[in-house]
Amino acid sequence: MEKLQRNERIAALIKILSDQPNQLFTFNYFVENFNCAKSTLSEDVELLKGIVEKFELGTIETVSGAAGGVKYIPVLGKEKVKTIVSNLCNSLSDSNRILSGGFLYMTDIIYNPTVVDNIGKIFAGQFINDDIDYVVTVETKGIPISMMTARYLNVPLIIVRRDSKVTEGSSVNINYVSASSRRIQTMSLSRRAIKKNSKVLFVDDFMKGGGTARGIIELMKEFESTVEGIAVLISTKEPSKKFINEYFSLMILNDVDEQQNIIDLKPGIKLD
Amino acid sequence: MEKLQRNERIAALIKILSDQPNQLFTFNYFVENFNCAKSTLSEDVELLKGIVEKFELGTIETVSGAAGGVKYIPVLGKEKVKTIVSNLCNSLSDSNRILSGGFLYMTDIIYNPTVVDNIGKIFAGQFINDDIDYVVTVETKGIPISMMTARYLNVPLIIVRRDSKVTEGSSVNINYVSASSRRIQTMSLSRRAIKKNSKVLFVDDFMKGGGTARGIIELMKEFESTVEGIAVLISTKEPSKKFINEYFSLMILNDVDEQQNIIDLKPGIKLD
Repeated sequence: MEKLQRNERIAALIKILSDQPNQLFTFNYFVENFNCAKSTLSEDVELLKGIVEKFELGTIETVSGAAGGVKYIPVLGKEKVKTIVSNLCNSLSDSNRILSGGFLYMTDIIYNPTVVDNIGKIFAGQFINDDIDYVVTVETKGIPISMMTARYLNVPLIIVRRDSKVTEGSSVNINYVSASSRRIQTMSLSRRAIKKNSKVLFVDDFMKGGGTARGIIELMKEFESTVEGIAVLISTKEPSKKFINEYFSLMILNDVDEQQNIIDLKPGIKLD
Repeated sequence: MEKLQRNERIAALIKILSDQPNQLFTFNYFVENFNCAKSTLSEDVELLKGIVEKFELGTIETVSGAAGGVKYIPVLGKEKVKTIVSNLCNSLSDSNRILSGGFLYMTDIIYNPTVVDNIGKIFAGQFINDDIDYVVTVETKGIPISMMTARYLNVPLIIVRRDSKVTEGSSVNINYVSASSRRIQTMSLSRRAIKKNSKVLFVDDFMKGGGTARGIIELMKEFESTVEGIAVLISTKEPSKKFINEYFSLMILNDVDEQQNIIDLKPGIKLD
């Protein structure tokens, strides 16, 4: 390839890095692809660090040493996170969303790629330093946000099923008690799905009593693995005593008042 | 903001555009954010077009006129598509994947964010000019690839459920016959999910007889909407006569021979 100009290298660099977030690329990879000196590439990377910071587009990290290289970390700036959470609270508080039984219609939001992309970035940002091996979710509504979280952490997604499937081979099944309904539910995961001694992040769209999260903790024990973190889009204020103690919740649902037609939904993170 | 250098503008431009694929940004948006002249921005965009083309990273499209602007189209180059499909065929043909009953274990592949991202780009590239309003899938295994297809087409994702859920309000339910098992199955979708007169793309991971696809066509009729395209990751060679005629299939499964331990999987697109 002919010699490239600096702006060509920088544009290709940011595109390639951010297409595979949290993936380490060696300096040699770019030196060969761009046909440039290593010192030139280092200058490009330094320049790019400044640009990405200036526009709050994430972080460029360099790792030195033999196994070193450069990677893109998609952590959003605080201001962007505030705006996203505040917009989400607003759109989800629209009283037209109230369904009979006090449920909230939200699939249009949690399946919207732009929203899902943002949530994935926020969740990944929270757990980026925790050496997560897998993102785990239970079908169905939490799958899109889990997928994007997995993408930004650059780890595989695991989808736990409600019953065992012939297309997934032999499986581990557990029964657990739903905290809210007190009913016995089943979870099933293929024996092949998770390597022993893994650290997983459990992601879901909604948490009330935390029964599902506790079920996942139990299920992971069967795979000799541990739940390192729990991230949910919305958790309910009540019951305040949940089956699990530590979790990251982007929003807190205080109340859905069907008679007054009011949804009381607040950010789960500090916005000041 | 102070004046930016060209390489700063170009890096920010490609990052912002490719973070929201297929989304039109006005020239003014960047002129204001970059504090530069429109003519300068036009030069930047022209430069970027060349860079993106040179590295086969997609396409930058400009739309002229009052409602004009610039957008990023994530169409992969032919060579990249060939490599992706060929690698997929190889990894899915590993005989360790054969499950009892002649099924194929593939959730590790179809839930892998990098793979899913590539498949989403390929599917979106096939239907980018078809004015798709929604990507539709049926739970569960096709959700990740559908999510990424929706992201690259920049349209909402719709997940059809196997039964109606209290969290989705009143729903339209249909019964249909599975082509392979001849059993009656149910599909359910919230009344709120789709606007009338929409064009949808149906995406799934696997197609045998095409019963599910035909079910989706029926379901969309209930929403006065039409299935403009069907994209599946793998379709089986037999039955050659399926319930639907036109579909895009990335791979064709000719046979899974449990006794000989051989998987015969071929690209569904031309690789020469």
